Amino acid sequence: MLPAGKYITCSKSDSSGASNSGGESSKESSRSSTPVLDTDRTDRLRDKMRRRTESGDHWFSLEFFPPRTASGAVNLISRFDRMGSGGPLFIDVTWHPAGDPGSDKETSSMMIASTAVNYCGLESVLHLTCCNQTKEKITGYLSKAKRLGLKNIMALRGDPIGTDWEEEEGGFNYATDLVKHIRCEFDDYFDICVAGYPTGHPEAQSYDEDLKHLKEKVDAGADFIITQLFFRADTFLKFVRDCRAIGITCPILPGIFPIQGYQSLRQLVKLSKLEVPEEIMRVIEPIKENDAAIRNYGIEHAVGMCRMLLESGEVPGLHFYTLNREVATMEVLRQLGLWIEDPRRPLPWAVSAHPKRKVEDVRPIFWASRPKSYIYRTQDWDDFPNGRWGNSSSPAFGELNDYYLFYLKSKSSKDALLKMWGEELTSEKSVYEVFTSYIMAEPNQAGHKVMCLPWNDEPLAPETNLLKDELAKVNRRGVLTINSQPSINGKPSSDSIVGWGPPGGYVFQKAYLEFFTSSENVTALLQVLKKYEPRVNYHIVNVQGQNTTNAHDMQPNAVTWGIFPGREIVQPTVVDPVSFMYWKDEAFALWIEQWAKLYEDESPSRMIIKYIHDNYFLVNLVDNDFPLDNCLWQVIDDMFELLDVNPLEQPVEQAAEQFIQEQSAN
Amino acid sequence: MLPAGKYITCSKSDSSGASNSGGESSKESSRSSTPVLDTDRTDRLRDKMRRRTESGDHWFSLEFFPPRTASGAVNLISRFDRMGSGGPLFIDVTWHPAGDPGSDKETSSMMIASTAVNYCGLESVLHLTCCNQTKEKITGYLSKAKRLGLKNIMALRGDPIGTDWEEEEGGFNYATDLVKHIRCEFDDYFDICVAGYPTGHPEAQSYDEDLKHLKEKVDAGADFIITQLFFRADTFLKFVRDCRAIGITCPILPGIFPIQGYQSLRQLVKLSKLEVPEEIMRVIEPIKENDAAIRNYGIEHAVGMCRMLLESGEVPGLHFYTLNREVATMEVLRQLGLWIEDPRRPLPWAVSAHPKRKVEDVRPIFWASRPKSYIYRTQDWDDFPNGRWGNSSSPAFGELNDYYLFYLKSKSSKDALLKMWGEELTSEKSVYEVFTSYIMAEPNQAGHKVMCLPWNDEPLAPETNLLKDELAKVNRRGVLTINSQPSINGKPSSDSIVGWGPPGGYVFQKAYLEFFTSSENVTALLQVLKKYEPRVNYHIVNVQGQNTTNAHDMQPNAVTWGIFPGREIVQPTVVDPVSFMYWKDEAFALWIEQWAKLYEDESPSRMIIKYIHDNYFLVNLVDNDFPLDNCLWQVIDDMFELLDVNPLEQPVEQAAEQFIQEQSAN
Repeated sequence: MLPAGKYITCSKSDSSGASNSGGESSKESSRSSTPVLDTDRTDRLRDKMRRRTESGDHWFSLEFFPPRTASGAVNLISRFDRMGSGGPLFIDVTWHPAGDPGSDKETSSMMIASTAVNYCGLESVLHLTCCNQTKEKITGYLSKAKRLGLKNIMALRGDPIGTDWEEEEGGFNYATDLVKHIRCEFDDYFDICVAGYPTGHPEAQSYDEDLKHLKEKVDAGADFIITQLFFRADTFLKFVRDCRAIGITCPILPGIFPIQGYQSLRQLVKLSKLEVPEEIMRVIEPIKENDAAIRNYGIEHAVGMCRMLLESGEVPGLHFYTLNREVATMEVLRQLGLWIEDPRRPLPWAVSAHPKRKVEDVRPIFWASRPKSYIYRTQDWDDFPNGRWGNSSSPAFGELNDYYLFYLKSKSSKDALLKMWGEELTSEKSVYEVFTSYIMAEPNQAGHKVMCLPWNDEPLAPETNLLKDELAKVNRRGVLTINSQPSINGKPSSDSIVGWGPPGGYVFQKAYLEFFTSSENVTALLQVLKKYEPRVNYHIVNVQGQNTTNAHDMQPNAVTWGIFPGREIVQPTVVDPVSFMYWKDEAFALWIEQWAKLYEDESPSRMIIKYIHDNYFLVNLVDNDFPLDNCLWQVIDDMFELLDVNPLEQPVEQAAEQFIQEQSAN
Repeated sequence: MLPAGKYITCSKSDSSGASNSGGESSKESSRSSTPVLDTDRTDRLRDKMRRRTESGDHWFSLEFFPPRTASGAVNLISRFDRMGSGGPLFIDVTWHPAGDPGSDKETSSMMIASTAVNYCGLESVLHLTCCNQTKEKITGYLSKAKRLGLKNIMALRGDPIGTDWEEEEGGFNYATDLVKHIRCEFDDYFDICVAGYPTGHPEAQSYDEDLKHLKEKVDAGADFIITQLFFRADTFLKFVRDCRAIGITCPILPGIFPIQGYQSLRQLVKLSKLEVPEEIMRVIEPIKENDAAIRNYGIEHAVGMCRMLLESGEVPGLHFYTLNREVATMEVLRQLGLWIEDPRRPLPWAVSAHPKRKVEDVRPIFWASRPKSYIYRTQDWDDFPNGRWGNSSSPAFGELNDYYLFYLKSKSSKDALLKMWGEELTSEKSVYEVFTSYIMAEPNQAGHKVMCLPWNDEPLAPETNLLKDELAKVNRRGVLTINSQPSINGKPSSDSIVGWGPPGGYVFQKAYLEFFTSSENVTALLQVLKKYEPRVNYHIVNVQGQNTTNAHDMQPNAVTWGIFPGREIVQPTVVDPVSFMYWKDEAFALWIEQWAKLYEDESPSRMIIKYIHDNYFLVNLVDNDFPLDNCLWQVIDDMFELLDVNPLEQPVEQAAEQFIQEQSAN
């Protein structure tokens, strides 16, 4: 054992700015300031883990490493979304000292973990290694992590750089020192995880010596242990017994490594100085050129081992080394019955895992298909709206700057986009056809299925699919829809398509429709809308900000709400006139940034998109009378009818008057 | 004209604490922080007046004087409630320098006006006279008025005390000086009204001279004029023409005095130095002994004069000198068609007119029948809950102290209460009968109709009447109900019984039932409630605060809410676990303060009430499943059934188990 003097001792640095970590929780009064629907949202990781363990409910977690390129980051983030849907308890992101892991680069460990928390709503653990680092540097990383909303750290020593590393008095010699430093500088703010070595750390003098070090890490304040990978369930189970024997009582999660290929296995084994058991080598050596066969074996082997672990009763959850791939891990989880795509949602939109956002329960509907953009643009807010939109919403939406464009970026390549949206546009009509193909999920004239639009990076939501036929009909005629929801009059909160929130409740919606359309259409629409006062609220705006509305200019309109047992009303989606003007900028910019710029400067295709951007209006409509049949389709029909009866010789207002008189006469 | 030097000049006194009157409005952000449903609630008096005038909508206002006795105050306040229901634009309260008008006495002008604003929700104007007063004294009155939530002042000179009064340099010589002083010390905080004299002020040198003084008052900052009474429409109409001719443009309200008796007319004429026209004297002299005949004539005369005034187009509204009586004025207003008992309510409970409370839109249901008590107990709050209960509610409910007992006081005499609630009680059963008689609005055994209970000073609300039969049934058996509402699943906001809020909306309710009952009943009830988890939420508490609940201990349950065009959800009534504990103290105290104390110390009647107070539980139940039929009656029925099947020999838990098993077997 090391002499006591060599351990990190706690002399809190006042300059770190992190010493006031207690402030976060003291702001929360004992009275519930929020109708948060799901305790899971407010608990810290160790409490969630405890609750799941106590309930005998098995769970899993996923490890990722930071990508090397920006497009790798885009891919990893959409992988987070896909793998997040299976319900991991948390994910963790590794730390690579050589790769500038604490920087603001899109690819840094820090930024990837932050994205997982803030944009993907995943509980995340950030790895951190302390070897060869100063206390100031480490405190800086931790402060930054805290600022970004990260709440969990995996404290590691890391590998020394070079070979001439020696223990340093008062420095970071072991992970224990890092654990102590975190507890010293940040009190109880972070949940801390440490690594366990089922066969002993390669550098340890002995297995027993290594166990003692693990006990020291836990005693210093670690909350749980994740083990290095292993190949036999027995290895892990013996390790757990040995840990318990020396008084380690915290959760110990087995690190599961589904073998995914011959090369990756060899590399990993080399790095971790582990030995692959003979029974495994015997199987894979003969098939080492056959990736699929190795992966199938890896899945089978992992499933078998996991079953033994879970059946032992010693294992509450499984931790997976994914190697940033999804197929093998998902398959293992599916076979184990742990991959559960739970259709229940605490709110109609995905909740961010940032601790500051945990009370957030109202958002404007405009960003419904672009939640990451909304989170990005509101990341500097100190308070998030809770219960009502008007009270807490800040007018300080973030600007549409370059970094933002990272999140604007489509997952599809320029080539794929051109195929979907047209190599060459000949008229506004060809744009209408793109929208229609997207709605119908059908191939366009060139035979390519339109899978996304600048405003929707995913195919139509199941809920929107209910409106498919009506949407296609109006898009064909130049009512270019980008957001809509049907009216709902009290469906159970457990409804598989429109339900959200805890069981036993009822959810409601007002019908909503948002679209771009020409100024001719808008002129007719405004005439028609007079017939629908005060049932329909509208906002109509062009790129210059010329704005027409019949709604209160400050008052939001709640369009989604839920009533639950024993709670106040939750109204998670509003049409808000103030934020609409910020959304408008973004919605119009997407025409240019994502679509026009696919074409050559001055090309006819580009000019067509630019014409639409410059001349069309963005319109939103709300049908307030939610118990009745949605009247918004009738509004659009009336608009087309008015345009059809008007031979363009008379001003539209005159035609409208005549039209309305005729309608009233019927 | 007076030399300029004699006027009040503005040298703002910094010690007054009133100079920062601008702070009130600067706190309000431009973004609507509240879903206030009715602009009327937020407008100031002059704006309401302007809007009503512009819309050609005639209105009326009512003048009262402060009562001489505390019981007179109780009566006047219930008169405010009754006359308030006819929809006056405002009321005003006169100022009598000799009667300590600015004190905290229940009968002072200040307290009566404050009660009208805060407890009766009436827009109110406080008179203030300045003659013989120091600036400090006047500023003190104004600061106090502002603190109490008064926003409008009628600025008067008042009559000099004694005969040796002389103009004082820099003092308050004319009402103009008071107007200037108010504007100087309180900027634009108050709306100011001044008096006009259609036949000239009795002390004025001439009619024209008096008009010039009036012009000065308006120029100094008065917002509108109320005239002295007059007897002929022409008198007023000429006065208005003369005012307009010299440039007075503000509203001029005619002061209408319905002649109500010979003596009061003579006294008033003497005080105001007016002459009663001969055509009136000719009619009333012969009938001067016949009060009814004079009042009828007075009504007829007032109606005729008011018709001429309104038809002239010069009169937007009528101001009535009520002399604190209601019959004559109400009759005149009814004949004019101005008395409109509008069943539409902005919220399900009466909104206070205090400017600080204008955003208030959530209250606990417990005080539904005792709104004045709720307002009193929360009068020291700095913020009122807006949109949600949890955020703004303060745990600092005012104590049940002596002043509070003023509002606790029943309108009925001790004698009347004894007749209703029993001269002598023989058992708990006799108490059950009192409750049942109240519910059924039927006479008790002694033949007296029970019109009120300690928790309800009024007969059953129309809404509660819907539940009458069920309520009577359970009260007969000792479930002593004090508050309840039926479930409502989306009725139009215009519904005459349960509707509230602006047109085009829908209102909803969860069924609610609150009652006192014995501990035996509670034991059975708790067993029965297991069957109704999680549909029914309950709170059960005794006078010692022993509390049982299945609800979140901090989370309120919204039991009344409304959905309206273009707005966020409004949820004006909640069952709040925190405030329930404050209500509990009040609800139990009423047994003793209002009922037990009617009887002699140690008398059997008193001991029975005391026994109930000491041993019964206060229970509230919410049926969360508002779209289904209310299950709360079934809950009570089940409780009775369980008690009936249990022969009292076995513990109730055992019986319950058996009972539930039998129920499940069916």
